[in-house]
Amino acid sequence: MKNRPDIHAPHGAELTCKSWATEAPMRMLMNNLDPMVAENPEELVVYGGIGKAARNWECYEAIIATLRGMEEDETLLVQSGKPVGVFKTHTDAPRVLIANSNLVPHWATWEHFNELDKKGLMMYGQMTAGSWIYIGSQGIVQGTYETFVEMGRQHFGGSLKGKWILTAGLGGMGGAQPLAATMAGASCMAIECQESRIDYRLKTGYLDTRADTVEEALAIIEKSHAEGKAISVGVLGNAAEILPEMVKKGIRPDALTDQTSAHDPVNGYLPIGWTVEEWFTKRETDPAAVAAASKPSMAIHVKAMLEYHAMGVPTVDYGNNIRQVAFDEGVKNAFDFPGFVPAYIRPLFCQGIGPFRWAALSGDPEDIYKTDQKVKELIPDNPHLHNWLDMARERIQFQGLPARICWVGLGDRHRLALAFNEMVKNGELKAPVVIGRDHLDSGSVASPNRETEAMMDGSDAVSDWPLLNALLNTASGATWVSLHHGGGVGMGFSQHSGVVILCDGTEAAAKRVGRVLWNDPATGVMRHADAGYDIAKNCAREKGLNLPMLDK
Amino acid sequence: MKNRPDIHAPHGAELTCKSWATEAPMRMLMNNLDPMVAENPEELVVYGGIGKAARNWECYEAIIATLRGMEEDETLLVQSGKPVGVFKTHTDAPRVLIANSNLVPHWATWEHFNELDKKGLMMYGQMTAGSWIYIGSQGIVQGTYETFVEMGRQHFGGSLKGKWILTAGLGGMGGAQPLAATMAGASCMAIECQESRIDYRLKTGYLDTRADTVEEALAIIEKSHAEGKAISVGVLGNAAEILPEMVKKGIRPDALTDQTSAHDPVNGYLPIGWTVEEWFTKRETDPAAVAAASKPSMAIHVKAMLEYHAMGVPTVDYGNNIRQVAFDEGVKNAFDFPGFVPAYIRPLFCQGIGPFRWAALSGDPEDIYKTDQKVKELIPDNPHLHNWLDMARERIQFQGLPARICWVGLGDRHRLALAFNEMVKNGELKAPVVIGRDHLDSGSVASPNRETEAMMDGSDAVSDWPLLNALLNTASGATWVSLHHGGGVGMGFSQHSGVVILCDGTEAAAKRVGRVLWNDPATGVMRHADAGYDIAKNCAREKGLNLPMLDK
Ligand SMILES: NC(=O)c1ccc[n+]([C@@H]2O[C@H](COP(=O)([O-])OP(=O)(O)OC[C@H]3O[C@@H](n4cnc5c(N)ncnc54)[C@H](O)[C@@H]3O)[C@@H](O)[C@H]2O)c1
Ligand SMILES: NC(=O)c1ccc[n+]([C@@H]2O[C@H](COP(=O)([O-])OP(=O)(O)OC[C@H]3O[C@@H](n4cnc5c(N)ncnc54)[C@H](O)[C@@H]3O)[C@@H](O)[C@H]2O)c1
Repeated sequence: MKNRPDIHAPHGAELTCKSWATEAPMRMLMNNLDPMVAENPEELVVYGGIGKAARNWECYEAIIATLRGMEEDETLLVQSGKPVGVFKTHTDAPRVLIANSNLVPHWATWEHFNELDKKGLMMYGQMTAGSWIYIGSQGIVQGTYETFVEMGRQHFGGSLKGKWILTAGLGGMGGAQPLAATMAGASCMAIECQESRIDYRLKTGYLDTRADTVEEALAIIEKSHAEGKAISVGVLGNAAEILPEMVKKGIRPDALTDQTSAHDPVNGYLPIGWTVEEWFTKRETDPAAVAAASKPSMAIHVKAMLEYHAMGVPTVDYGNNIRQVAFDEGVKNAFDFPGFVPAYIRPLFCQGIGPFRWAALSGDPEDIYKTDQKVKELIPDNPHLHNWLDMARERIQFQGLPARICWVGLGDRHRLALAFNEMVKNGELKAPVVIGRDHLDSGSVASPNRETEAMMDGSDAVSDWPLLNALLNTASGATWVSLHHGGGVGMGFSQHSGVVILCDGTEAAAKRVGRVLWNDPATGVMRHADAGYDIAKNCAREKGLNLPMLDK
Repeated sequence: MKNRPDIHAPHGAELTCKSWATEAPMRMLMNNLDPMVAENPEELVVYGGIGKAARNWECYEAIIATLRGMEEDETLLVQSGKPVGVFKTHTDAPRVLIANSNLVPHWATWEHFNELDKKGLMMYGQMTAGSWIYIGSQGIVQGTYETFVEMGRQHFGGSLKGKWILTAGLGGMGGAQPLAATMAGASCMAIECQESRIDYRLKTGYLDTRADTVEEALAIIEKSHAEGKAISVGVLGNAAEILPEMVKKGIRPDALTDQTSAHDPVNGYLPIGWTVEEWFTKRETDPAAVAAASKPSMAIHVKAMLEYHAMGVPTVDYGNNIRQVAFDEGVKNAFDFPGFVPAYIRPLFCQGIGPFRWAALSGDPEDIYKTDQKVKELIPDNPHLHNWLDMARERIQFQGLPARICWVGLGDRHRLALAFNEMVKNGELKAPVVIGRDHLDSGSVASPNRETEAMMDGSDAVSDWPLLNALLNTASGATWVSLHHGGGVGMGFSQHSGVVILCDGTEAAAKRVGRVLWNDPATGVMRHADAGYDIAKNCAREKGLNLPMLDK
């Protein structure tokens, strides 16, 4: 079927468009479809199920051609991956404005979306797929790292040294856990029922070693701790069988979570007593039987988690819906332990801290290493951040255009960006860089089952906030801005916005960067201050934000 | 209870803010709450059920105070009627960005909205209430007038002489019906359950007379027709009780519609058998009970409309969602009669023609009369438009700041605005004017039961379009931009955006006006061209729009 050549963004400092402000989105769109980056480039699928970068190949070609012809005072509108219009604006306006997958609420279902998709009228943009700032698996490692670091901050005085985290699931996302844990200084015991998954994680270096039993894994961890080192160990088995055993035996982890695919009771969770082979067969021949067996198994799994929670072991749901399944199976206190966002991410969001990232349009890894160094210089007092940068350089391979992610917040983002812009200007970097973030950020998302679960004031579902975020980023002069629906949690369940800004070394860019990368995280602080979080209110006061009703 | 003085926007050419770009939204917010404009100013309700201009009085005061203090390179964010932040942007950026009533789709219901509203976390912005460009009943008169004229054209050979239109609801919008009907040459019988509403329409001259019964009203109409004149008559009562009676008695109107606030089952529709007093009390004490009673009443109302439709009486839903409510109540053929947009308005939208409007910040009616004259000069070849301007001047009283509405499209809007800006510059007008439109316009709304009902390609529910419209207006330099949810048809059923731009006579304003008032209607032509309408495709070609996939 395949008959088009692989897509790779141009590298280097030579323009193929009329300006960097159009070259940048063009390269990043291409980069999203690079076979090193995209999960299924032939179908234009970047990540996350069917998250696409353009509606179809005709639209992709038209976007590229349009960007190539655009002037510096024009703006391209992209509607669900299709280029629909070019309008005269001005140089301080975005060059691309994107709206993907948005549906009037009453019709915001997978059923209606699929109907429109089939007619060629829509596209699922996920978060960074349709907004052209996905950078590969580095993102998930960093997110998990930050979660574990925050766990350490809240429960272990800032250090995870000598601690071990118990989890399950070494799949696409969950496989980041052992690497993120050891990067954060903790050991990790990860229960996984598929041998192939353990092997794959060993091969890529995300997992250090494996053990046949929990006792053996514990011995390995103890030995490593005695040597002052963190280690990750995979254990083959079923978490729903192993966890209750561990409770019985009095084996106590320092922290506990889970990343089996509990959100999908047919394809995502191995029932107690089943072999993997049985599971795979029955998934095809009798899916209902799988679900009927996996759900009570999850309930048992959650009950063990609840026992640990009751003992005081920090326990969180990592966004796989396992509490809900258990609850529906009659475990009435399933929601006693929190989701990871309210537990660990929200305090960061309150300070505008989130998944900040940038990519080198030069294509040269050295450019990223130089920015790594600059980050360390400008933020000298954050050992976790320095540690991340070192570990990321050492252990994470670039995919497509070299890029870096690191969670920094209001006050730091624009400082770093201005320094990068300066480095472009004085030739330290070989070409411009673009700076963006995930939509899963402090001020850019309303998603009541994930990012905005259990907001203090009950405003989980209020989506005025991401809309204001997108409007303000547009008004501030971002290079491209996007508004999406349904990312992460699916149709009907989230609204969110993205932003990317170009540092091309000019004074004009510096002004825009200064505004956008201050205002963007500031909307996150604002949103959380408005919800009543003291961390956010204090942050707003410290940073001198002008929030008219802050003290009312 | 009332203890605050009436609100009137300042008149004249003297600033009370630091610039016209903040003075303008301040005056227009105040104007929305002027007792001459707002339906219930004490509750901050402007029109359309509970469509409000600010969340509460504290928020209102804070918005005014904030606007007074703002610089020309700052932008205020308003979240559901509350001023939540002021950010540094630039002079070509909007001074105010507004997001009202937006909810993540799965939670986008009146139940959840009301919960949040009660907690003080939300506000219903309707369309122009929360976006500060409501100008009283005039706003709807021309749209209704054109609709009735088109009705006459399609069903009565171009003349409504001797015909009568049956409708209900004489509220903020619905009150325009009797005047629009008589202007169009038809008589009108309007059923309204609140005596005060009938009295108010009599007082303002929108309604000619009242009758105690349908029979009496019919006699008045017959007498008037015998004299060769059209007349409008208000009848006190409940439409859901009166319509089925009329059907039974064989009373046959020439055309039929409805403008009760059916989109809001708690605050908008009087249930059968209830007194208005009971309704008002229960709205506060037991809103669920009101909804439970009003919905079946609406179903009965719609069944009567369906009977008339089946008899061949031209019948349209006037955008209040009453068919949907009836449908949900089990009236499976509720959508047998069409909405007024596909029936009469869409051909205009295809050319970017819609409810363009402006207001004179001087407060001086002469300023509007001078702009009326200018419109005639610049569009000399449209007798229908000239006639409208003459009749409007003669029969429509200004409410609050003098304002004018006239439906013009792409190519004319920016031309008129640039001329107005010139008139401000050379002192012909005593102070700046603001130019805006309803959210119900060509490119600014997704509302599958109203503005985007039955789109040619099935894209009724795709809300990427209004989001792109808001983002582009922000990028083009509008003075304030808004994104709302639920206007007209209620929670869950629409997403739409508003725009207002200042003409202060400066060169900078001329540039912004030229961009915004070209781009805004152009997005409407684009949206309809994308859906496949030939009128729109031809318009796009004629006007030279750059739509990358127009011919693919
Ligand atoms: N930010 C977030 O909210 C977030 C982030 C990452 C992952 N998640 C969620 O975490 C889950 C995992 O994601 P993924 O991409 O890694 O999924 P995946 O399907 O690729 O991996 C799941 C793994 O769990 C294993 N597994 C299933 N049942 C098991 C059992 N009983 N015992 C031990 N192992 C078992 C499977 O063999 C598989 O390797 C998903 O539900 C995902 O939605 C959420
Ligand atoms: N262009 C459009 O699509 C368009 C234009 C105007 C209005 N509308 C819709 O029309 C509706 C009316 O708007 P409005 O601003 O006039 O609202 P409103 O709330 O000011 O007025 C509604 C009126 O209906 C009366 N009413 C309620 N129930 C009644 C009943 N059972 N019998 C008789 N009268 C009854 C009320 O007393 C009130 O005066 C809204 O749903 C609005 O969204 C749509």
